[in-house]
Amino acid sequence: MNLDAHDRAGYAIALEQARLGAGEGGVPIGSSIFQNGKLLGAGRNRRVQNGDPTAHGEIDALRKVGRRASYAGTTLYSTLAPCAMCAGSIILFGIPRVVVGEDENFPGELELLRSRGVDVVVIDDPKATALMESFITEYPALWNEDIGVEEN
Amino acid sequence: MNLDAHDRAGYAIALEQARLGAGEGGVPIGSSIFQNGKLLGAGRNRRVQNGDPTAHGEIDALRKVGRRASYAGTTLYSTLAPCAMCAGSIILFGIPRVVVGEDENFPGELELLRSRGVDVVVIDDPKATALMESFITEYPALWNEDIGVEEN
Repeated sequence: MNLDAHDRAGYAIALEQARLGAGEGGVPIGSSIFQNGKLLGAGRNRRVQNGDPTAHGEIDALRKVGRRASYAGTTLYSTLAPCAMCAGSIILFGIPRVVVGEDENFPGELELLRSRGVDVVVIDDPKATALMESFITEYPALWNEDIGVEEN
Repeated sequence: MNLDAHDRAGYAIALEQARLGAGEGGVPIGSSIFQNGKLLGAGRNRRVQNGDPTAHGEIDALRKVGRRASYAGTTLYSTLAPCAMCAGSIILFGIPRVVVGEDENFPGELELLRSRGVDVVVIDDPKATALMESFITEYPALWNEDIGVEEN
């Protein structure tokens, strides 16, 4: 699995963000960004909280980190596999490594990331999987809205 | 070129947004989103204005449009070819058509968009090309920051 103490800390912050989002009635996906073992920022999906469709967890974390001339040495942690938008942000900014809680509830764009040279680690965290599964079961329309799936 | 009156109106708004951004000292890229010929919202790159690295023109326009259950029948206009993040947002939300001012100053991810079934039209607008070229010449470090190119 190749997780060190920094990874465990980074992932724990992402999972905490996801739980905070759940408590706010939001889509429970969290993210954090570390650089060389130091926390740069963290965020969570805020579609519901801010009425912002682009506020996925990873995008919210990138906003919290703010402007940077370099993302060298960064790892992005996310409780769920990144969608096309978030994978694109990782590719755009040259984030070299991504640690993902789970890809069972949403496959994301892990192959796109790998095809662009990003090191992707999926840790298969049952806590993240259960949190997401519970949310999707309870709020299917909100989940479909968040991933651009049109309901009939 | 396949541009109708709605396209000309949509693109004109994107170009106006880019010029507004230039006047604010920002990265001069604008975007607008129409649905079945009706304006949903418009935005511009606000990296400088808001200190937000994710606020590319297309993302800012999507934020202005707000939450939607469907992007059927939408066209996104952008003065410059969308980067990986913005192309990813177009793919995620299922925006079926993109009209791009120019792809000379930045190639963007037009092939990725096309590979996912998005109808991409490049209009080769010399006004957009000149605006962007002038910005890149004057502010190369800011431009590199915006597209994730690390300077040495």
